[in-house]
Amino acid sequence: MATDRTSGPAPLAMLVDALKRLPGVGVKSAQRMAYHLLQHDPHGARQLGQALTDAVQRLRHCARCNTFTESEICETCQSPRRDPALLCIVETPADQNMIEASHSYQGLYFVLMGRLSPLEGIGPREISFDRLLERAADGIVKEVILATNFTTEGETTAHYLAELLRARGLTVTRLARGVPAGSELEYVDAGTIAWALMDRRAS
Amino acid sequence: MATDRTSGPAPLAMLVDALKRLPGVGVKSAQRMAYHLLQHDPHGARQLGQALTDAVQRLRHCARCNTFTESEICETCQSPRRDPALLCIVETPADQNMIEASHSYQGLYFVLMGRLSPLEGIGPREISFDRLLERAADGIVKEVILATNFTTEGETTAHYLAELLRARGLTVTRLARGVPAGSELEYVDAGTIAWALMDRRAS
Ligand SMILES: [Zn+2]
Ligand SMILES: [Zn+2]
Repeated sequence: MATDRTSGPAPLAMLVDALKRLPGVGVKSAQRMAYHLLQHDPHGARQLGQALTDAVQRLRHCARCNTFTESEICETCQSPRRDPALLCIVETPADQNMIEASHSYQGLYFVLMGRLSPLEGIGPREISFDRLLERAADGIVKEVILATNFTTEGETTAHYLAELLRARGLTVTRLARGVPAGSELEYVDAGTIAWALMDRRAS
Repeated sequence: MATDRTSGPAPLAMLVDALKRLPGVGVKSAQRMAYHLLQHDPHGARQLGQALTDAVQRLRHCARCNTFTESEICETCQSPRRDPALLCIVETPADQNMIEASHSYQGLYFVLMGRLSPLEGIGPREISFDRLLERAADGIVKEVILATNFTTEGETTAHYLAELLRARGLTVTRLARGVPAGSELEYVDAGTIAWALMDRRAS
């Protein structure tokens, strides 16, 4: 058994302990990261230190869409070129970026900053569901597009939200499941093909 | 294809970029870490930021053994209870901790902060070989114990060092093969390390 003691000078032990708080980082990775930064990349260490301090100080949640922003309301929510009748719900800012990169959506967003995960103890209270419901009930939003991931947890979240939103008289849609653009059928898994068949549309 | 763009507010983009500099962290992990810290652990983020700044500012290399220390010479090197005729060479401070935990070594150390790795372009110049040779030639050290890992790179480093040190008239030994071949010292239990020290052989 490895005795994962963090010893040595205090600043090193504190750095390893702090790195261990990162998701997916155990004591061995934390040590490796600490040695790497101190030995080979002190400039990177300083930069990361500053970036962390800055981010925590300067970022907050957009009052409308919940994404990280430096202002009260983010640029996207402030844009007059966005269709305020459409609200797309995503799990993370990265997902929002992916949808923006498709250049095929002109509505607004709500970023959950997570998804329901009973196994991890993440319920509706841990995610900003009440804020989302309030946001969607502004009288201007007509359709809510559920763009949570197509994982078990993302699907659970979508089902749960669909019921709540539909009960408030909103049109609720979900991103289509299907064969990824540019891919060959023989490399696509059977489950995806099954969904693509079920969701087939007039051509 | 995922377009791994880092967009959004500048402090977030800068944080993701800085996290990507950590070894083994790609853009996806960096985003996950950033969202996690901002959303669920701002205190941890502040703590890590401070720890990084502190560590880089306060730590330097011990003038004698090369490990990280806050003072000119580390506590171990300053200890009068250590046998100055024995010098144990390890790759990292974590390896030194493991040997200390075996409570079977009373000599001094030299920490390479790495190992030879031709594939990664790490040669004798990238590691502090000249400082080690100078250190070992103080006229007091009689035996150098090579405790680099029993990996290909660790063995290469040991062979290389053995020749250099023997040419300088020093007795050179290697940890006994009580340590399972192919494994890293950090993951070996203290008892095995104790046996390997006792059974050390001429190298
Ligand atoms: Zn917004
Ligand atoms: Zn020292």
